[in-house]
Formats: sequence, structure tokens, C-alpha cells
Amino acid sequence: MLVVKLGGSNGLDLDAPCRDIAALVREGAEVVLVHGGSREVDRISAALGKPPRYVTTPSGFQSRYPDRETMEIFAMVVAGRINKLVVERLQGHGVNALGISGIDGRLLMGKRKGVIIAMENGKKRVLRGDYGGTLTGVNASLLKLLVEGGYVPVIAPLALGAEGVALNVDADRAAAAVAAALGASTLLILTNVPGLLRDPADPSTLIPRVPRERARDYLERYARGRMKKKLLGALEALEAGVERVIIADGRVERPVFSALEGRGTVIWGEGGP
Amino acid sequence: MLVVKLGGSNGLDLDAPCRDIAALVREGAEVVLVHGGSREVDRISAALGKPPRYVTTPSGFQSRYPDRETMEIFAMVVAGRINKLVVERLQGHGVNALGISGIDGRLLMGKRKGVIIAMENGKKRVLRGDYGGTLTGVNASLLKLLVEGGYVPVIAPLALGAEGVALNVDADRAAAAVAAALGASTLLILTNVPGLLRDPADPSTLIPRVPRERARDYLERYARGRMKKKLLGALEALEAGVERVIIADGRVERPVFSALEGRGTVIWGEGGP
Repeated sequence: MLVVKLGGSNGLDLDAPCRDIAALVREGAEVVLVHGGSREVDRISAALGKPPRYVTTPSGFQSRYPDRETMEIFAMVVAGRINKLVVERLQGHGVNALGISGIDGRLLMGKRKGVIIAMENGKKRVLRGDYGGTLTGVNASLLKLLVEGGYVPVIAPLALGAEGVALNVDADRAAAAVAAALGASTLLILTNVPGLLRDPADPSTLIPRVPRERARDYLERYARGRMKKKLLGALEALEAGVERVIIADGRVERPVFSALEGRGTVIWGEGGP
Repeated sequence: MLVVKLGGSNGLDLDAPCRDIAALVREGAEVVLVHGGSREVDRISAALGKPPRYVTTPSGFQSRYPDRETMEIFAMVVAGRINKLVVERLQGHGVNALGISGIDGRLLMGKRKGVIIAMENGKKRVLRGDYGGTLTGVNASLLKLLVEGGYVPVIAPLALGAEGVALNVDADRAAAAVAAALGASTLLILTNVPGLLRDPADPSTLIPRVPRERARDYLERYARGRMKKKLLGALEALEAGVERVIIADGRVERPVFSALEGRGTVIWGEGGP
């Protein structure tokens, strides 16, 4: 089982990975996709007169801060626009893709953050009314039902909170949780950089292999911004038994095959080479 | 099996039918939902600076005329916004709803209209580049897989064209096709009028029963605007073996139970009372 996180929400970015995935599926591979869509959410939120709000947590993570209205726009764009564009593209390549979000069939269960602590001008500030969530569970049996039925699940990053409300969750962490729940052999996170870089400003400083036992150390030393969540997700997936995590460039030709052939940053789990 | 078409896309309209459906599901009923969302699509299209275009066909049907951009907005709103609001509401009532659109898992297959003939100022005009479609098939085995798995499918009215492109289809016709493909006992179409009216301007002229053999005659005599498609779908469903079709008011308290108890317009199929 291969879990792929599609990065980049520009329509043009979708075709190359979808073509690779179609080739893999034709060869009999079992694939589950997870996608984000932040840039597109921001674009449409702004067009609707409701620009997104981001906050930085005290530990340095960038986080979306959604109120109910922003959450509804997020759901609309990721589960309606991005999800259906990916499904349509895969169907065009002959793959029987089936798009669902985390609230469908209780696929992803989450816990509402409720209150988040943000850093503003160096000071901590408590923000309320947040519809962001952290994942608490994955309905692996639903994914297995679909995969065994011949469908390729395409997952939009929402989760269902305990009170039955939809929550916005991080797509990288969602992909990691899905890979962990399915016992996937590989989690491939496609992004818009070549992988983990020693110097984020210099693509030639790619770190091709992260030693498993030093992964947390690498996270703290080299990961900046959204790369932190990718590495955090990677660690969670490896701890749950996923064999390897690859963080690779989604903008190249044959992005999925390149990554599986060794491009990007690879982190092997226990028992890896 | 009960197929319910939810009418009205106002968030507030959703709760009463969802509560009824939750009660039915608790009692063991198998339910599949189909929804539209035109009003909401129009609202958001306008907010995004891309107001919708409608045309009237020579036979008097009102039809959306979507170019690719409008089609993408339609997909976003029906499959992302409306679909997930319905799923969230049902989940809040304890129903394990699972929302998909017609392009997911090739649930609804369609044929692109391609060219449509519109009446403009009494003259026929040929319009091209249309992403509207008519239904050609339903993947009933996907719906059965989900229902047998314990999920309540909630369907957004898209269909997949032969070339793998998403098409906008009419939700009433989609609900009828789903009911027909599943061999449902009842198709319930909730709408914003009490049912089929002798005089569309006077709610007291409700036609409570339409004799099966005169249904086409009633369609031509009494149905106006969108009611035509509801009746056309009803006839198709009855011809395919659905036992009864009910067209009823979705704005009342307990709208699903009221309709099942006999309110609205009922059309029985062959072998009906």
C-alpha cells in the first residue's frame, strides 16, 4: 500500500502525479491519496471577501486560524474544488478514483483545538472559536472497503469532531495518520521543494537520507515552516510501522516514480536498509 | 430502500429532514440521499464575479448553461459546500453519512449535451461549450457496497462524461435514476412547494394523487419550471420499477415523516393501491 500526499493546489501541478499514479494502479498497486489545497483556499477566501488568518504557535508552527465561516470556505474548496479536480483528472487517466473528506463515513476523527495560543509581536495571545482540529483516529475499515472494492480513495483534509462538527486538519498530518492506520509500506509526501534542505534557501543542500534515530534532531535543526509538519507526520508514521517516508519534489516530471526511485529525502523506519 | 431528494439549499432547511432521516435510520431503514444546491451555487457564483447563466429549451425546460469555469464553481459548491453541510448535519444526528459526487467511483455516468438549443426572445439559438450532461448510468454496486457497509450515501449531482470530464446534472433526475437503479420502494422529492399544484400560484390547489396512467398528461397540463423535471424524473423512476414517488414540501416540520404519511403529491407505480 502506497499513500501519496499531493502537494501544490495549482491545477497544472496535478497532471504529472496523476499520470504516475494511473501507471502504478494499472500495474496493480494499491494507492490512497491525500491532498491539501491551502493556496487555493486562500485565493477563493480572498475573492469571497474573507481573507484567511494564519497564526504562529509558540513552538514555531504556522497554523490556519479558522472561524466557522472560514471553515465552511475551507471545506468547500478542499472537499469540493480540489478533491473533485483530482478525481476528475484520475478518472481521465482511467483510474476509478473516489473522493471523500475526513467527515464522510467518520473517516478522520478529530479533536477541536478550541483555544489556540498564538505568538503576536513576540507575545503569547489566546484565541478562541477555532475550527482547527488535531487527528484522533482513522476509520481504516472504510478505506479497506473502498480499496478492496476497486476504488482509489482521494481524501480531503477535514475531520469530524466529537460533537459532529467539521474541523480543518493539516493535510500532511492526515496523510501520515492514514498511512499509519493502513500499515502502508510507503508514505510519499510531494511538495514544492526538492525535500528537506540544510539551507531552505538553497535547493542544492538537499538531505537525501535522514537516519531514523536522528530524525527528531534533523526536524529541529533543518525544518522550517510547513516542513516541520511534514517531518512530524513522517515520524508519527514511522513510529506506527510505515516502512519509509519520502519527502520529494512534486513539480518535476514523473514525480511519483522519481521519488520511489530515490529522489528527495528518504527516512527509513525500523528494519529499513 | 428509500431515496430522498433534499430540496432547498438554505442551511436552515437541512435540519428538519436530517432529523427525520436520523430517526428512520435508527429504526433500520436503508436511505440514500441526493441533493441539489442551485440557489447556493448562484449566490457564490455571483460573489465570485461569475453570475450563472440559464437558458430555456424549446420544450420549456429551464436549464443551467455552464462553461468550464461555471462548472468548476458548481462542483465546488454542490460537492464541497452543500454535500459536506448535509453530511455534517447527519453526523451530528448520529447518522454515519458519507458524501460523494457522481464522478466519484463512476457513480453517475453522463453524456455531455455539447450543444444545446435555447429559446431567446422567441428564437432558437445554438449554444456550444456546455458542461451540462444527461445521465446514462448509475453504479448501483457502489451504493450497495456503502449501504451494506453501514454508511448513508449523500450524493451531489455531478456525472462523469465519457472522456472523463465532470458534468453538471439535474439533481431531481439524478435522484430518480438512483432510485431506479437501486429498485427503491419510495422516491421522495422534497421541494419548496406543497407538491404538484393545479395553479402554481395557489398552494391550496395541491393535487394529492396523480393516476399513474395519466401522469404524462398531468406533467404537460400542470407542471411549470423545475416541477417539470421532478415529474419527468418521477415517471422514469416509476417505469423502472420504483413503487411510489412522492413530491412534498421540504419546509414543514417533520417533512420526511409527513410525506411518508401521505402529504404532498403521490404517484403510485404499477401494482400500487
